[in-house]
Amino acid sequence: MISIAIDAMGGDFGEKPIIKGVIKALETKPFHAILVGNSKILKPLIPKKLEQYIQYEEASEIFSMNEHATDALKNKETTIYKAINLLKEKKVDAVVSAGHSGASMSLATLKLGRLKGILRPAIATLMPNIVNKTLLLDVGANTDCKAENLFQFAIMGEVYAKEIMQIPNPRLALLSNGEEESKGNDLTKESHQLMKKIPNFIGNAEGRDIFNGQIDILICDGFVGNSILKACEGVATAIFHLLKDEINRSFIFKLGALLIKSPFKKLKKHTDWKEYGGAPLLGVNGCVIISHGKSDAKAIKNAIFQAINFSQSHINELIEKELEKYNV
Amino acid sequence: MISIAIDAMGGDFGEKPIIKGVIKALETKPFHAILVGNSKILKPLIPKKLEQYIQYEEASEIFSMNEHATDALKNKETTIYKAINLLKEKKVDAVVSAGHSGASMSLATLKLGRLKGILRPAIATLMPNIVNKTLLLDVGANTDCKAENLFQFAIMGEVYAKEIMQIPNPRLALLSNGEEESKGNDLTKESHQLMKKIPNFIGNAEGRDIFNGQIDILICDGFVGNSILKACEGVATAIFHLLKDEINRSFIFKLGALLIKSPFKKLKKHTDWKEYGGAPLLGVNGCVIISHGKSDAKAIKNAIFQAINFSQSHINELIEKELEKYNV
Repeated sequence: MISIAIDAMGGDFGEKPIIKGVIKALETKPFHAILVGNSKILKPLIPKKLEQYIQYEEASEIFSMNEHATDALKNKETTIYKAINLLKEKKVDAVVSAGHSGASMSLATLKLGRLKGILRPAIATLMPNIVNKTLLLDVGANTDCKAENLFQFAIMGEVYAKEIMQIPNPRLALLSNGEEESKGNDLTKESHQLMKKIPNFIGNAEGRDIFNGQIDILICDGFVGNSILKACEGVATAIFHLLKDEINRSFIFKLGALLIKSPFKKLKKHTDWKEYGGAPLLGVNGCVIISHGKSDAKAIKNAIFQAINFSQSHINELIEKELEKYNV
Repeated sequence: MISIAIDAMGGDFGEKPIIKGVIKALETKPFHAILVGNSKILKPLIPKKLEQYIQYEEASEIFSMNEHATDALKNKETTIYKAINLLKEKKVDAVVSAGHSGASMSLATLKLGRLKGILRPAIATLMPNIVNKTLLLDVGANTDCKAENLFQFAIMGEVYAKEIMQIPNPRLALLSNGEEESKGNDLTKESHQLMKKIPNFIGNAEGRDIFNGQIDILICDGFVGNSILKACEGVATAIFHLLKDEINRSFIFKLGALLIKSPFKKLKKHTDWKEYGGAPLLGVNGCVIISHGKSDAKAIKNAIFQAINFSQSHINELIEKELEKYNV
């Protein structure tokens, strides 16, 4: 049975939503959950019938969201440090954390090491499009990139799309400010030339293509990816905020909104990041799923399923193998 | 009376929506419209009562969307070349074009010249937020920037916000992947230090802050700005597409949607780029408003009003004056 270390206390809302997520996941699919945190606080939250699946790893501290990621290696008593350490010692198959994402990344990179040939790991995230989902990477791990980094993100994204998203020939694109090969900044123009070597590369795509179902994977540097991710969250929030404000102005509007509650719900479900669980950290020697700090039980449950799928695949071996094919 | 040269044929949909926009604008506010294009085609579109406001500048060619911006200077017979030339010769106060934006920018920069001290002009665009609007720049003119460029975009954006948006102390922010000063890529970290000299600078902001009403101006390089702009358009389009699909599944849903037609309409109006008209090109010696290639009559009308407001202000003098204050 797969063992997953869960940083039980690192999220913005403390241990409760995380443990609820673990319970929800266990009710669907059995696995070994190693809860990393203060067992005195955690134990009372676990129902008797699930106790058999749970173990505890004591960790007395939480790495605060205000700390610098670079300090994560210093404090060996934090939940995230101990969780990654369990993976390093091969006592678990995967880690799920809703804690400080920079800390998770630094610890994973430095303690687990990078895959053979990988210069920089990347955080990949799934974004909803009108047909299915688009994998966007990097979304935060690397703010300044070289063309070789973007090329490697492309290889990693492609393997993830094939193995986890089950797309045999994913349409792989490079984010630019125009579809033409001549468009872009210095980094993307150079990256474009490297990515041409990848058979599934379909060329440049624009920001809007994340959502129109025309591509499966979009490659960019972590600064751009993170900015886009947050801007898109912002648009969606603003649209629903403005609409709600208008609807609240009249009884008739409220009645209308009630009648289309179900379409709204479906839309919300389709566009809800909590449905996707978390963002896999690709390129490190292990399986680390980085969850949103504001994860609720559903998000944690889905992150755990993501970790299980990742662990049961051979993504990391395949990334190394794929990378060997290219002389970049 | 203010004279505006209008590239009457450069948009994606030909002369009709552009002329309709000119007519709509003239019906609201009198100005001199110099229509640049084939007068034989344009004249029949103008109602008799408005003829007194219209002049024609013959131009036999259209700079195609597929051509390279750098070729714009070569063909002197295009509508955009002739329009910019009228401004250079001071025969008009402003230019509005829905043609090739790169060509407009190249021609404006090279023929009109840059304002004193400005290294690179920038395209600024207004984006709706939940309270009002956020000015985002650059959104496409400069794909590779230095910190000095971003600093100058900040100065130009600030003057625009004060003069045109009528915000006495605009909240000026720098786009980054985190609010902390330490967050960002090499470019933004260096830019942050320069921008600290500007009293209205409130620090870093994230993509989501474009929409939450917390900032008035957001500064970024043209690659990032363009990517964000297009991604945000993509999200909004996807949301309404998915919702429409769901609503069309049942009569009850359609009825509900009908009841909240008015809130949807208000939302659409608030978030519709056509309401904002166009994007001013800041930093060139003149007033050039770049409209969306897909502009309809409303967009052109609003772009014309934007050109009138810009021409009646002293933005360009103020930018030069403001820039002199800083030793960057």
